[in-house]
Amino acid sequence: MHHHLDHAPSGAADPTLRHRVADVTLTVLGPDGRPLADTPVVVEQRRHAFLFGCTGFELIDLANGSSDPATESLADLWLGLFDAATLPFYWGRFEPVRGRPDTARIKATAQWFADRGVRVKGHPLVWHTVQPQWLLELSLDEIEKVQRDRIHRDVRDFAGLIDTWDAINEVVIMPVFDKEDNGLTRLAWDRGRVEVIRLAFESARETNPGATLLLNDFDMSTAYECLVEAVLEAGIQVDVLGLQSHMHQGYWGEEKTLRILERFSRFGLPIHFTESTLLSGELMPPEIEDLNDHQVDSWPSTPEGEERQADEIVRHYRTLMSHPSVHGSTYWGLPDTGAWLNAPAGLVRPDGTPKPAYHALRRLVREEWWLAPTTLVTDADGHVPVSGFLGDYAVTADGRSATFALTTPGAGTVAARLA
Amino acid sequence: MHHHLDHAPSGAADPTLRHRVADVTLTVLGPDGRPLADTPVVVEQRRHAFLFGCTGFELIDLANGSSDPATESLADLWLGLFDAATLPFYWGRFEPVRGRPDTARIKATAQWFADRGVRVKGHPLVWHTVQPQWLLELSLDEIEKVQRDRIHRDVRDFAGLIDTWDAINEVVIMPVFDKEDNGLTRLAWDRGRVEVIRLAFESARETNPGATLLLNDFDMSTAYECLVEAVLEAGIQVDVLGLQSHMHQGYWGEEKTLRILERFSRFGLPIHFTESTLLSGELMPPEIEDLNDHQVDSWPSTPEGEERQADEIVRHYRTLMSHPSVHGSTYWGLPDTGAWLNAPAGLVRPDGTPKPAYHALRRLVREEWWLAPTTLVTDADGHVPVSGFLGDYAVTADGRSATFALTTPGAGTVAARLA
Repeated sequence: MHHHLDHAPSGAADPTLRHRVADVTLTVLGPDGRPLADTPVVVEQRRHAFLFGCTGFELIDLANGSSDPATESLADLWLGLFDAATLPFYWGRFEPVRGRPDTARIKATAQWFADRGVRVKGHPLVWHTVQPQWLLELSLDEIEKVQRDRIHRDVRDFAGLIDTWDAINEVVIMPVFDKEDNGLTRLAWDRGRVEVIRLAFESARETNPGATLLLNDFDMSTAYECLVEAVLEAGIQVDVLGLQSHMHQGYWGEEKTLRILERFSRFGLPIHFTESTLLSGELMPPEIEDLNDHQVDSWPSTPEGEERQADEIVRHYRTLMSHPSVHGSTYWGLPDTGAWLNAPAGLVRPDGTPKPAYHALRRLVREEWWLAPTTLVTDADGHVPVSGFLGDYAVTADGRSATFALTTPGAGTVAARLA
Repeated sequence: MHHHLDHAPSGAADPTLRHRVADVTLTVLGPDGRPLADTPVVVEQRRHAFLFGCTGFELIDLANGSSDPATESLADLWLGLFDAATLPFYWGRFEPVRGRPDTARIKATAQWFADRGVRVKGHPLVWHTVQPQWLLELSLDEIEKVQRDRIHRDVRDFAGLIDTWDAINEVVIMPVFDKEDNGLTRLAWDRGRVEVIRLAFESARETNPGATLLLNDFDMSTAYECLVEAVLEAGIQVDVLGLQSHMHQGYWGEEKTLRILERFSRFGLPIHFTESTLLSGELMPPEIEDLNDHQVDSWPSTPEGEERQADEIVRHYRTLMSHPSVHGSTYWGLPDTGAWLNAPAGLVRPDGTPKPAYHALRRLVREEWWLAPTTLVTDADGHVPVSGFLGDYAVTADGRSATFALTTPGAGTVAARLA
């Protein structure tokens, strides 16, 4: 059965990843639609079905024409590893002056990524921090209205380019958030969590019915489980459950990660690990509850930290891939420069060189789990066996090419017509 | 307006308790139904509307005829302070052998309390600990069925005597409880929290439509808030929200208690503080997460601890009374003997003598907030002014008496016909 695994990615034989791998017979058709018999063809993977994502914040200037060698090199590293970008829609920065949203600049960035085959997500449509100051002057009803309007506008402006949104972020704490006064906490306190979630999902869905909308949280406690039950009871259609994993206080480890996955996969929803961070330096002390409370001047990446990070990132991604509910994972920032809390959280050092974790993750994603261009010879019926991770592929022969997708794990058939 | 506060409890003038106090004109009617003019009458309080509750576990033997002087003295102390009892329905103890429930003994106890004017609550109908062993041999569907049957049976057997139930206990942790395998955790994991809550409330309501049913939890985090939202979204009628407050690691203080009340009163439901504990000895170390993990051989009550407990219990009850959403509070065990975790959690020492906290709480509940027998003289219309805490009262004159209730805060009128 697996006679053709010789040509498959080495990871395709991993028994823990069986749900990620297709093992199909590809029929290569000529431009005339007839099987291309007894011909050498080159098959190669173009993209994973699984979202190997990263924030794209640092490439906004580049995408808007402000180029420098360091950023260009960063962009190459980005595209060499990731295939899904999270772009910032923090309301307070996106629209600091009411009525003057940063649409054009972010749209150019989304287009830049899309042109390079990268899927783009907007983050977030509703959140209680990084709020516009002008919201504080409004009544609750007005806050609700402008929040709805904002969702309608941005989802409409980006439709086609961004069809995946973190619809709402961190609702567990939203109504009782006490670090700073803000309009959304007021709204969530008054209306309840479920109602602000409904507002976010309904408004986005009205404008873009086909959008993929996430509920996203950092709270991995029973609170988030209960919130998900509330949302499901309320009949709100959540497409994907977003789990953050900013591991500034240390890698969770396989056991904790799997237990979290076990708990949150019970709801039958796809899961994205929306915000993963692993440090390559000293860890944050365990007694800190709100990571924002840990502010330091300097937080260097260290050689030991970088080795640890490389080990942990591989284990983390292997764990996520091993669980069928996980459909994507977003690393929270490629470079250390500009990282949240100044933490050595990136995969690229301030001097622009990749850390071991970058190489280790790339080895996984683009080697062990990746079908590099492979020459195969079709049989008399135009068939070649293709084994690989679910995703997008191309086949070329005689200077013609076609694309096809592996969408279902296990055995199957697929056809591609060269053009 | 408050000219008659001379005859009111001293606490009636407390501005933080205005929602607890009625200030009425009582018309005393003779047996003929005509106003009793210009006659001295004695007015006295019989019971608070607010539930001043305590567990009644230690009086079960006494109520069942097994009497000794120490328990009789404990019963006197109990009745001298409390007017609401929580009785145990822990399934594993109530029905350790399937089909042989402890109904008669608990019913005699409930009757004993009812005969003494004490309101009785059953605790709990559904919980994942203290489970019968025989449940573990059943399938999920069978567990669900016997759980329903158990609720139907016990709610029916006690209807009229017990019409208030902790319908379900500690659901936040129920599905992910990992200390011991048990049927209810299995059920909650499979069906979800909302569904086991629905099971508990629906089954009890079917049998006793007029019952007061509580959702009860120790988890004061956002998780319980989210669970309440889920339950409300599911359309489950929760009559009272139960908040536990086992303060083995220290008194919460006014600020924390009020913040919790602010958070949980947002749902518009009455709140009971169902399980309050304050220690009169050393506190449990703060790093302990599950209080059950702290097992000690000896945990003495100390003089300093007793003074602290007396101070804290007064502050705790003042705080609860100050918040209009709180309709009752149950202290978790009068004697130290038999207290959970062997903690010095009671208000009565092992030698049977009351601690300062007993006297302090009694001073509040039965003096400062209590209308002792007071002689007043009716006017020409049979009126006397009565100010007092909401609750049940009696008026007597010429060897005849009548009862009346103060049910609404503020000014009003009420009539009582002597018989």
